[in-house]
Amino acid sequence: MSKINIGIVGYGNLGRGVEVGLENHSDMELIGIFSRRNPETLDTNSPAYHLDEILDFKGKIDVLILCGGSKTDIPEQGPALIEHFNTVDAYDTHAQIPEYFNKMNEIAKENQKVSVIATGWDPGLFSMNRLIQESILPKGNSYTFWGRGVSQGHSDAVRRVEGVKEAAQYTVPDEMMINKILDGETVEYNQKDAHAREVYVVLEEEANPTEVEKAIKEMPDYFVGYRTSVSFISEEEYRKEHSDMPHGGRVIRQGNTSDDAISVIDFSLSLESNPEFTAAVNIAYARAAYRLAQAEEYGARTVLDIPPYYLSSKSREDLIRDLL
Amino acid sequence: MSKINIGIVGYGNLGRGVEVGLENHSDMELIGIFSRRNPETLDTNSPAYHLDEILDFKGKIDVLILCGGSKTDIPEQGPALIEHFNTVDAYDTHAQIPEYFNKMNEIAKENQKVSVIATGWDPGLFSMNRLIQESILPKGNSYTFWGRGVSQGHSDAVRRVEGVKEAAQYTVPDEMMINKILDGETVEYNQKDAHAREVYVVLEEEANPTEVEKAIKEMPDYFVGYRTSVSFISEEEYRKEHSDMPHGGRVIRQGNTSDDAISVIDFSLSLESNPEFTAAVNIAYARAAYRLAQAEEYGARTVLDIPPYYLSSKSREDLIRDLL
Repeated sequence: MSKINIGIVGYGNLGRGVEVGLENHSDMELIGIFSRRNPETLDTNSPAYHLDEILDFKGKIDVLILCGGSKTDIPEQGPALIEHFNTVDAYDTHAQIPEYFNKMNEIAKENQKVSVIATGWDPGLFSMNRLIQESILPKGNSYTFWGRGVSQGHSDAVRRVEGVKEAAQYTVPDEMMINKILDGETVEYNQKDAHAREVYVVLEEEANPTEVEKAIKEMPDYFVGYRTSVSFISEEEYRKEHSDMPHGGRVIRQGNTSDDAISVIDFSLSLESNPEFTAAVNIAYARAAYRLAQAEEYGARTVLDIPPYYLSSKSREDLIRDLL
Repeated sequence: MSKINIGIVGYGNLGRGVEVGLENHSDMELIGIFSRRNPETLDTNSPAYHLDEILDFKGKIDVLILCGGSKTDIPEQGPALIEHFNTVDAYDTHAQIPEYFNKMNEIAKENQKVSVIATGWDPGLFSMNRLIQESILPKGNSYTFWGRGVSQGHSDAVRRVEGVKEAAQYTVPDEMMINKILDGETVEYNQKDAHAREVYVVLEEEANPTEVEKAIKEMPDYFVGYRTSVSFISEEEYRKEHSDMPHGGRVIRQGNTSDDAISVIDFSLSLESNPEFTAAVNIAYARAAYRLAQAEEYGARTVLDIPPYYLSSKSREDLIRDLL
């Protein structure tokens, strides 16, 4: 059986996650990593090329996994590359997703390609689970919790505070509230009360810790209204304890099947490496993109649209026999 | 917007669950309950008919939800009814599912109908989650736990023991083992060690408790090899404490994204009413059957085949905007 040939576009944390993750899939082969940097400078043993060379691989790559950022990379690379390749991405700029979907859908259809957008876990698996949970229990409430894990966005925001040399921000869900919801109890949920924020900061030499702590806690959107703790640590401790990227979270639906009976559906993730898991989801959806293209089902798709069996390397017959 | 017209075939626990569950779905309407019993004897305010009258409703019902038993009802009713109606069922005789699928698929295609088979939670949602979990984390282990909840099959088996008047059997998962798996630890899992069985028995007047306990604990397939406890209770306590049908369970995947990083995906259910929740899943898949029929995608489908957005009453555009 011929393998599914994969290309990686962008070689940051997510791209490295796809590279290592492909080793778990015997039906897939990494053809090349494509970067805007000089490929000789990339720290990899995989074949690496400059992004400018990618059109030479037309017909040799079944699916490109786009691993750039959602802010500027994907909105530019997606529409350019879907003309020539099937693509999968983890585009996560919520407000722009419908517009991006429509653009990718149009170009993909024109060029007989498949684009799977916004995969990963949130958006992605969490979105799919919210949909399934709400459809089964329409009379109820949904709850999302994130963490315990490192939020890159919040860590970056702290790093921009004057006097901060390095920082890691952990989002910490309220476990007591989670347990109440899982037990079917009624809770008052809002995102701010449901999460605390733990910040670990390495200070610049001259910095004033009191001022740094105040600047963090008063940062609008990111920290105001949250229970926030700030701890100052040494650079050595930072490197040792806070250089991993764990994360996780859960989507819970609590709903009544009748007046007398409550059901709780809980989908939860606990991830030692957030970028590697996001990559793992992208890889499974790359297989789905390949299958959809084989079936000539061209256009853009999301995790909400894709029959689950397309994610598996096994045949539909084997899955029905073994899993049902 | 016209509603999706639903018929219920069979009026046991599951049929009653569908009847009460349909009240949660404003886009659906219950047209009738069809039973082999005299419809006037059914304890319901819904329109009820004898099953022999069902062909009079051809064209008036969009989807029939088959609520009979898997042993004899569904294998007979499914193939007979799919000629005339779209159907959904919770057929759960694992070994026969491929054969039943093929039969339903053939007749459904011949008659331009849609049959969604083996919905519910196990098989059903658990099957779908096993598939998704394994596809994302191919290098890892899957674990299924059932309970804490009442197993009808085991309760029935205990009721067949001489001297037993009434019985309820609770399947109880090993919470310590679950917590270890969720924490990413390695465990030795086998289904028997992972579950205990709690049996509550009301004795017949003349019965010998020692003999009854021995007969239960030595019952092959059902109890041998399991940690089993047998408690004797009064009929009054049985009615008060053990007449509900709670259940639940979880499907966990523990897998490596790389040599250094483990991810855990956990899908769990906690259900105050097992039949009502199974019914709730059937109802959502009845909507999917309707949508598939509208799209002329005739034939048999399982939960592994159906794009998630077909389960929702909302439009695909709204779902993409709101959930991604």
